[in-house]
Amino acid sequence: MPAAVKKFIEAFSNLPSIGPRQATRLAYHLVALPRAEMIEIAKSLVELAKTKRCKKCFFLHDNLGEQCYFCEDASRDKDIIMIIERETDLMTIEKTGEYRGVYFIIGEMKKSGVLDPDKKIRLNILKEKITQELGGVAREIILAIAPTAYGDFNANLLRMELEPLTRKITRLGRGIPTGGEIEFADEVTLICAMKNRG
Amino acid sequence: MPAAVKKFIEAFSNLPSIGPRQATRLAYHLVALPRAEMIEIAKSLVELAKTKRCKKCFFLHDNLGEQCYFCEDASRDKDIIMIIERETDLMTIEKTGEYRGVYFIIGEMKKSGVLDPDKKIRLNILKEKITQELGGVAREIILAIAPTAYGDFNANLLRMELEPLTRKITRLGRGIPTGGEIEFADEVTLICAMKNRG
Repeated sequence: MPAAVKKFIEAFSNLPSIGPRQATRLAYHLVALPRAEMIEIAKSLVELAKTKRCKKCFFLHDNLGEQCYFCEDASRDKDIIMIIERETDLMTIEKTGEYRGVYFIIGEMKKSGVLDPDKKIRLNILKEKITQELGGVAREIILAIAPTAYGDFNANLLRMELEPLTRKITRLGRGIPTGGEIEFADEVTLICAMKNRG
Repeated sequence: MPAAVKKFIEAFSNLPSIGPRQATRLAYHLVALPRAEMIEIAKSLVELAKTKRCKKCFFLHDNLGEQCYFCEDASRDKDIIMIIERETDLMTIEKTGEYRGVYFIIGEMKKSGVLDPDKKIRLNILKEKITQELGGVAREIILAIAPTAYGDFNANLLRMELEPLTRKITRLGRGIPTGGEIEFADEVTLICAMKNRG
């Protein structure tokens, strides 16, 4: 196999959800593309590397300043903060068009969760932001943390840490997802769904 | 969404077996990598773009000359030619260590198959090669074309085109794959397996 193909496969096999098999197919597909098209794809990666993180909420942006689109937008409620794990979660929430507050990306809640040094740093930045910009009390903090075992555990830690800094702290409601079958719902979901009925 | 992220997602969504969802996750994963690592990945793409195609068999190579590893290798039987659809097929065959002939990549046998202008050009190059290098007659041509409906149709077209230029023309044997259950084999496979018994 040509060295360049090998190197590409190695580089891409390490990315999440791309195995060596898909990376190999990808390599041979890319090689068959017109050269200009491939250079475009490589460029899109280089451009991606230039993306910045918002100093306030850690979302990505390519604005001239240091803030992202949401933190810059004067029409959004700065005292309602939704804490999310991933950028993709933010995009899904934003698509609903129903949320007018700002976001704060804490990172994925895996094993170590909030105890992770990176997340501790971010949490301190959030606390400082609430102190400096909101006089120490947010109107609401919404914990949009996945309702998994790790998520629940870490959401509780976050609640303890942030309760003194907000009037209200909530989590996203649990229940049967639209299109979901009641027959196949687990017990915990059903209990939540009954509580949240309306 | 930052423009760079959007552009990346667009570029990668168009690649085979990567949808917009995977491309999005990939974008956010890549952005979180150390910058040097991302530049490495981009470089691997640029290097990939520099890979050449063998003038004789269309496999990829990064040799100084114009021939690939297999066509350059004096120990391989140049008068036995295996016609394959994809580079990945070649690699799978090569892994067996049982084949000592050379290859010829014809391209994927989709709808248009051999009638496709690209494939017609390649076929003519193969014919010319047999005429010039083998005095007009190969020892054997093996059609390693997938035994699908399109594959069978195109293999027959290839057989008609190439029969005058070879002493023998064969296809890979059909039968029950190792580990396959006889119970679930389709009729055509079973008939082939019975014929190829031994």
